[in-house]
Amino acid sequence: MSRSLEGIAQMDAMRFKQGMRRLASGVSLITTTDGHGRHGFIATSVSSVCAEPIPALSVCVNRAVSSYQVLADAGIFCVNLLQESDVELARRFSSSADRHLRFEGRQWGALRTGAPVLSTALAAFDCKVVFAHSVHTHTIFVGHVVDLKVADDEIDPLLYFNGGYNALRPRVGT
Amino acid sequence: MSRSLEGIAQMDAMRFKQGMRRLASGVSLITTTDGHGRHGFIATSVSSVCAEPIPALSVCVNRAVSSYQVLADAGIFCVNLLQESDVELARRFSSSADRHLRFEGRQWGALRTGAPVLSTALAAFDCKVVFAHSVHTHTIFVGHVVDLKVADDEIDPLLYFNGGYNALRPRVGT
Repeated sequence: MSRSLEGIAQMDAMRFKQGMRRLASGVSLITTTDGHGRHGFIATSVSSVCAEPIPALSVCVNRAVSSYQVLADAGIFCVNLLQESDVELARRFSSSADRHLRFEGRQWGALRTGAPVLSTALAAFDCKVVFAHSVHTHTIFVGHVVDLKVADDEIDPLLYFNGGYNALRPRVGT
Repeated sequence: MSRSLEGIAQMDAMRFKQGMRRLASGVSLITTTDGHGRHGFIATSVSSVCAEPIPALSVCVNRAVSSYQVLADAGIFCVNLLQESDVELARRFSSSADRHLRFEGRQWGALRTGAPVLSTALAAFDCKVVFAHSVHTHTIFVGHVVDLKVADDEIDPLLYFNGGYNALRPRVGT
């Protein structure tokens, strides 16, 4: 990449963030464990990758988050899709305050990998890392889904858009 | 991966799709061009990757979509974030019928790469492919954002959730 193009891109970092505020997304709690402690962080960068022959998904993680190294070393993680009523939980896992209280007051289980599974998740995808690629400050992890849990009820997802938490208004168009 | 684990994963393809219906996402029209024709497809797999030192994003593309090869060969694409009123456009680009009419009736421009930019996009990210990784049926593309356009007004995003188009209900929680 030429120096001039890089210069233009650097100038646009603020505008890029402004544009990305317009990308709506579901909110996920990504959990992992090193066998001793439980770790987790909030992500809005989860994407389905493929369903067959092996279900896979991706998540993009800022390497500055405290759980990054645990996830990278353990090679396992669970994607817990949050529901509308999980705003407080999302805030707690996004704040560096009271880190030791993050897992308090909610019910947790585990599937195959041992990563914490939130009992009320819309869906929980238990994953084994099969690929990782770093792009500057972040790493894209691809995980094979080795187990999963889907909530029985239709429940409303928590959304992130324009720098804040939002909810869904169903059924648009004909 | 052992045969037994693969067997379990294959059994779970349906459940994986069922779980992924619970992952809400914004809806993007991804466009590209080979210099002759305009091509586009709908994606719900766009994610921000990093803002600095060079803004980057990722999109996961089914290699069965007709525009895949054009995008892969051209190495450029534009992510157009759709608004709530774009349901009809999203349906048109998701259907194989009337392919030649897809770009009709709307205003299009271009930024740096020449990929079509929808005039009403919430934001449009003009990208150059810098990395591609295939996972079974799909390919994850990482693009450096070489130019972008952000709509001035606050406008409502089109969402996809539970197999249908939805809209946003703003401001959840305190």
